[in-house]
Amino acid sequence: MPFDLPNVPDITQPELAARLQQLLDNKTKPVGSLGRIEALAQRIGLILDSDTPALVSPQLVVFAADHGLVARGVSAYPSEVTWQMVQNFLAGGAAVSVLARQHGMGLTVVDCGVAHAFDPQPGLVISKVALGTADSLEGPAMTEAQARVALASGAALVRELSGNALLLGEMGIGNTSAAALLLARLCGLDVADCTGAGTGLDAQAVQRKIAVLRQVLDRHAAAREPLAVLAAMGGFEIASMVGAILQAASERRVILVDGFIASAAVLVASRLQPAVLQRCVFAHRSSECGHALMLAHLKAEPLLDLGLRLGEGSGAALAWPLLVSACALLREMASFEAAGVSRQEEPFGGTIPAN
Amino acid sequence: MPFDLPNVPDITQPELAARLQQLLDNKTKPVGSLGRIEALAQRIGLILDSDTPALVSPQLVVFAADHGLVARGVSAYPSEVTWQMVQNFLAGGAAVSVLARQHGMGLTVVDCGVAHAFDPQPGLVISKVALGTADSLEGPAMTEAQARVALASGAALVRELSGNALLLGEMGIGNTSAAALLLARLCGLDVADCTGAGTGLDAQAVQRKIAVLRQVLDRHAAAREPLAVLAAMGGFEIASMVGAILQAASERRVILVDGFIASAAVLVASRLQPAVLQRCVFAHRSSECGHALMLAHLKAEPLLDLGLRLGEGSGAALAWPLLVSACALLREMASFEAAGVSRQEEPFGGTIPAN
Repeated sequence: MPFDLPNVPDITQPELAARLQQLLDNKTKPVGSLGRIEALAQRIGLILDSDTPALVSPQLVVFAADHGLVARGVSAYPSEVTWQMVQNFLAGGAAVSVLARQHGMGLTVVDCGVAHAFDPQPGLVISKVALGTADSLEGPAMTEAQARVALASGAALVRELSGNALLLGEMGIGNTSAAALLLARLCGLDVADCTGAGTGLDAQAVQRKIAVLRQVLDRHAAAREPLAVLAAMGGFEIASMVGAILQAASERRVILVDGFIASAAVLVASRLQPAVLQRCVFAHRSSECGHALMLAHLKAEPLLDLGLRLGEGSGAALAWPLLVSACALLREMASFEAAGVSRQEEPFGGTIPAN
Repeated sequence: MPFDLPNVPDITQPELAARLQQLLDNKTKPVGSLGRIEALAQRIGLILDSDTPALVSPQLVVFAADHGLVARGVSAYPSEVTWQMVQNFLAGGAAVSVLARQHGMGLTVVDCGVAHAFDPQPGLVISKVALGTADSLEGPAMTEAQARVALASGAALVRELSGNALLLGEMGIGNTSAAALLLARLCGLDVADCTGAGTGLDAQAVQRKIAVLRQVLDRHAAAREPLAVLAAMGGFEIASMVGAILQAASERRVILVDGFIASAAVLVASRLQPAVLQRCVFAHRSSECGHALMLAHLKAEPLLDLGLRLGEGSGAALAWPLLVSACALLREMASFEAAGVSRQEEPFGGTIPAN
């Protein structure tokens, strides 16, 4: 085993949680009136171990790789789109490029196993395990040794990143299939409920995709443990994301989870180290069939529900300002006392003085 | 009549709508995969009459006033909180102050009729119609002449604002009552379905609030036309907002609507000039009972659903970056052709060449 999984301890802190709640309740607003933004501020405070949390130098990482299973016709787009989109990310023309610019965040693209030889370029990290996974209908998508290499490279990447927030993005034609397979096997669900149109299959093609995925699950009926399932049916970008999540969690970075594929990586990571979920914020509910089930399984309530199904980390980037807002509100809003604002009246009409 | 309502013409433009859709469909992403962000980009493009829309110098305006009906015990907070919170907005300690700073937007507070004499201060516009409305259980909240003055001052304010986007905020202890009354009368709904906890009434107090509002509606049974309803049961901040909305709409500004109170102003404005709604983006679904009904009536699908119920324009400010993102994506994303990315495969496996 060339890679020891980072340890992710429990960060439950009742005193800090109570202090954060008290701070929020003393802000000049009706108690609870900022709704889920208050829960978000709580969570970020707990992750960063601070009652004045500040997000610094956010890093969006797009993990990219190809999938042997694409040969079975599970995607509406050809595999070559993976490398073409990597070039598009780096050239600044993809959705996530635009959003990262808008929010002033770092954007790193990682070649975890794209079936293409890239020239070295600024913003591109080449950590290629292979030229795409093997066809998981014929055998494991990757060997366990390859899975370990991908995990280790994801973790190593995060160790080098500045800041205290990681936004998860991915690109890989075929990777909704891998995510559906992981969800079905790890959560014991019917793969038909986990499988959607991906980049845009029609209804008939979705049925063919489901039939292929059933065969893949049968082929790997023995794979039950998280790393074995990941190796048998996952992807290099997903494995690398699992390593990145574990490392980011061990360093108490805020992890902003994008859509279906990123959530599948969180699912695997949380099976290895359950306290990973304490560091996660879920950006959005994808319209990709299966994501709602995945979120329910992870007991996650995402921030946005806008019918997104692009991936790349685009949903995470769209949700990002809400995290910044939550921290700013916690740090900068005045208390009733400081602002000289009267509190809620008592039931019988008396007013609690402001101080 | 000292004030002619601004005219708000229809801005339906099928050619521009088609061009915007074609631009969105040619961006390097699966068709429709940015979900409601694409509809948002469409809408802003149509409002600003541009296929490269850019939002400039956003202005958040907080309309503030007091309500005579508060004497009937309809709010959990005393009226003095209105002026105290105005001071808090100006001092930078309120939620909306923090959020306006975060997003670099202008913040203007308008005293439309607060029961307090403010010293002149930077950021405060004093357009006081009276020291709060009259008790609408005893007579009309304001005279029709007062309503006209408030409408005119809201319109005049917007004429002086820079930029092309108006974010609606409000502050007025008691104004969820006014909004519930407007919703009930203008949409023919039972006021019990329109009435919620406001700033934090308990269940028993909500029942008392509903009983008071029923009496107010009975008292003004004859008021049916939008301006008559507004005068009888509205508030100075709502009337001023109606004028601001009409003016902003006539200038084709993007109007970002906050919660229940701001939506009530949009409801009144849209009864006067239906094409107002073409210029509106609804920021969020408030947890204030009645807002979901109001949004359904306006056929509005808000961007966020985070359990907010603060007002001030805080929900509008939280949603703002999504509008900026929608425009940036429309302007800056590459097309398939420009990026050299392959398109979706045809049903039988052929690939449409990128150019």
